[in-house]
Amino acid sequence: MLEQLKDEVYKANLDLVKHGLVIFTWGNASAIDREKGLFVIKPSGVDYEMMKASDMVVCDMDGNVVEGSLKPSSDMPTHLHLYQNFKEIGGVIHTHSTNATAWAQAGVGIPNIGTTHADYFANEIPCTRQMNEDEIFGAYEKDTGKVIVECFDGKNPNEIPGVLVHNHGPFSWGKDVHDAVHNAVVMEQVAKMAFISFAVNPDLQMNPHLIKKHYERKHGKNAYYGQ
Amino acid sequence: MLEQLKDEVYKANLDLVKHGLVIFTWGNASAIDREKGLFVIKPSGVDYEMMKASDMVVCDMDGNVVEGSLKPSSDMPTHLHLYQNFKEIGGVIHTHSTNATAWAQAGVGIPNIGTTHADYFANEIPCTRQMNEDEIFGAYEKDTGKVIVECFDGKNPNEIPGVLVHNHGPFSWGKDVHDAVHNAVVMEQVAKMAFISFAVNPDLQMNPHLIKKHYERKHGKNAYYGQ
Amino acid sequence: MLEQLKDEVYKANLDLVKHGLVIFTWGNASAIDREKGLFVIKPSGVDYEMMKASDMVVCDMDGNVVEGSLKPSSDMPTHLHLYQNFKEIGGVIHTHSTNATAWAQAGVGIPNIGTTHADYFANEIPCTRQMNEDEIFGAYEKDTGKVIVECFDGKNPNEIPGVLVHNHGPFSWGKDVHDAVHNAVVMEQVAKMAFISFAVNPDLQMNPHLIKKHYERKHGKNAYYGQ
Amino acid sequence: MLEQLKDEVYKANLDLVKHGLVIFTWGNASAIDREKGLFVIKPSGVDYEMMKASDMVVCDMDGNVVEGSLKPSSDMPTHLHLYQNFKEIGGVIHTHSTNATAWAQAGVGIPNIGTTHADYFANEIPCTRQMNEDEIFGAYEKDTGKVIVECFDGKNPNEIPGVLVHNHGPFSWGKDVHDAVHNAVVMEQVAKMAFISFAVNPDLQMNPHLIKKHYERKHGKNAYYGQ
Repeated sequence: MLEQLKDEVYKANLDLVKHGLVIFTWGNASAIDREKGLFVIKPSGVDYEMMKASDMVVCDMDGNVVEGSLKPSSDMPTHLHLYQNFKEIGGVIHTHSTNATAWAQAGVGIPNIGTTHADYFANEIPCTRQMNEDEIFGAYEKDTGKVIVECFDGKNPNEIPGVLVHNHGPFSWGKDVHDAVHNAVVMEQVAKMAFISFAVNPDLQMNPHLIKKHYERKHGKNAYYGQ
Repeated sequence: MLEQLKDEVYKANLDLVKHGLVIFTWGNASAIDREKGLFVIKPSGVDYEMMKASDMVVCDMDGNVVEGSLKPSSDMPTHLHLYQNFKEIGGVIHTHSTNATAWAQAGVGIPNIGTTHADYFANEIPCTRQMNEDEIFGAYEKDTGKVIVECFDGKNPNEIPGVLVHNHGPFSWGKDVHDAVHNAVVMEQVAKMAFISFAVNPDLQMNPHLIKKHYERKHGKNAYYGQ
Repeated sequence: MLEQLKDEVYKANLDLVKHGLVIFTWGNASAIDREKGLFVIKPSGVDYEMMKASDMVVCDMDGNVVEGSLKPSSDMPTHLHLYQNFKEIGGVIHTHSTNATAWAQAGVGIPNIGTTHADYFANEIPCTRQMNEDEIFGAYEKDTGKVIVECFDGKNPNEIPGVLVHNHGPFSWGKDVHDAVHNAVVMEQVAKMAFISFAVNPDLQMNPHLIKKHYERKHGKNAYYGQ
Repeated sequence: MLEQLKDEVYKANLDLVKHGLVIFTWGNASAIDREKGLFVIKPSGVDYEMMKASDMVVCDMDGNVVEGSLKPSSDMPTHLHLYQNFKEIGGVIHTHSTNATAWAQAGVGIPNIGTTHADYFANEIPCTRQMNEDEIFGAYEKDTGKVIVECFDGKNPNEIPGVLVHNHGPFSWGKDVHDAVHNAVVMEQVAKMAFISFAVNPDLQMNPHLIKKHYERKHGKNAYYGQ
């Protein structure tokens, strides 16, 4: 079932490697079929070189495995919680990409300080609060999803398609899994550039008009960027 | 028309990828035929892997598309304004290359602190002022060109073939588009090295005689560098 | 003798190059056969491109060469001392990988500030004390092993499978040499990310519960990460 | 004439590219035949992709071209001055490699803070004084050689096979041109690591005994490192 979606998720996982975001098995991709109420996710701990599209695991909206002989990624409950709460997203990515993870470890959001950032994220990429002991030793992966959703209280996940989980690393999403990969690449790049920018000038100032303009040039009703 | 120039612009776009200056479609190259009063520019938002030389778009000096079935790069009015005001340049490049963009985000010019820089840029690579609300929500791309030209008041664009647009990224130019690519590569490299140099020694001092010497060794009337 | 182990050690040496941890001949791998009381180690100063599995050198637990026409790596006595004192390890790696070596030069351990680190190392990756004159001009390589073992007084080498030797570089180990390579890659990556994290936020705080959780999710009795 | 030496110099130039030390034509290699009193150097400004071994230029000890249809590298007088004053060196390399150039721009020597450095350089890699106006606008390239030699007053160039020219970049040398390339790679790597080490711990302390030990382990009378 969902053979095409499995293929998309499989390719998204390989794209993470191609873009240099993943070492070993440190990443996972998923995509949802909203009509069927099922999502497809990478299996846990399988080498990318060995992995086949048919290894992808199909889960339902209660987190049960519906098809697949391998265990789903241990981060599956986080993906599920995001699909349940961010109603318009079609794909989710988690990586430990170098610079985005470094910002997550630093425990601060990536400020929107340039048009590269503003082209894809309408504001700062936020960093969640630290999780507490109960969350960590309870339903950890599900609660990771909960702190992400809590962090987006008052924010639009469609306009800020990514987050840093405190002391952990980045999650991103998009209208489909291909778009989610794209946003994961952008997060890593803006994290890298922001590190250098603040080293060069700790007192730098972003132009707020530029954020609005660039985001709307690509994403607003009157978007005119691209074909 | 202008098949050879299209080919040059097409190859320049691919060279940006080859030199690691461009992720996804974040860059564009153009070249002008001064006699015909026409310039050739990359189409907007087309994947580099799909792109063909025949996809390049021909525009006139009013910014009208003269040939080509695709939309020109949305930065076309910036390129046009540079051709109109910097009378001797033959090619223009825009990228979001990592280190040059990081300096643009920092909002400060790249100081001329070494012979690598001085071999190509007779002085600091300046950073424009921030654009105001009217410019950003008015003729944004054309006004980007205007703040660049304003920034070069009293400076010679032939001797400083590049600029950082505040909170945005680098533009470079040259006698032709190949030369403009070359200068884009140099900007990225001197931006990278300057970041490290100032981290190592915030009080570093450039030798002003060395700037003059190295620039003139390659570019002055008595140049003797190269064949 | 030990042809399979030689092959594993040979491949581990090549993996160090593949993962970008080694320049020239700056690294070495070994693996032990605990039953036979013999270990296999890379020969000294041989180019990786020339090296064959049959060049690997077999040594006994007194450090004598039992088989092989080439000299063992000059770091052999360090490897031997680790095998003698860390009873459960099966492989040892030494590299001068960029970021881990930079932390070793800085003389400080790599703090456990994220889940990437906590997935593999239950705590800080410690840095040894500086060696004294007698140790350095005496049995230097053996005493390098001694300061590592001294540094692990009160620590469990199975839970912290790596160390920084002060002003020198990283050693890592694992249940076999493949696992030791894996840990060497992780050390380099967490060293790189920690450098950026502290640059972004010198006052960052790790969540201690997260360390426990992530380490135990992969390594504890109730591990559920991976297939 | 000197066909074998031309081939060595040609290959050394390509090795600089392979090791990532050279962008465009920003580097040059030379080697000397002390018996014949002739040295072979890369031609000026020729693309590495086009270059052939037969393009190498042969010069005598007065700096005259003895064979070759192309102009020698404009840095030829620097190479010549080093051969005249450092009597035991057989090859010279100049690059603008990223991190070594960044330290040269910073105007400070690279401190010997680790065994990677100490394995090849018996002490700090020094940075020359700034050149004065007369030197820069007089016999600039020859005087570049002079400030290097002046900088080595009281130092042994065989034990410190490299230098940073202030605001410019690194020169290295060795017993032959292959060895000089090796030292250029080491300089770049120790420059990169030292940048990170000081960022991590500005108050780091090197162990002086370790410098002596590691240098002598590879280079002293009783060297025992390597085959």
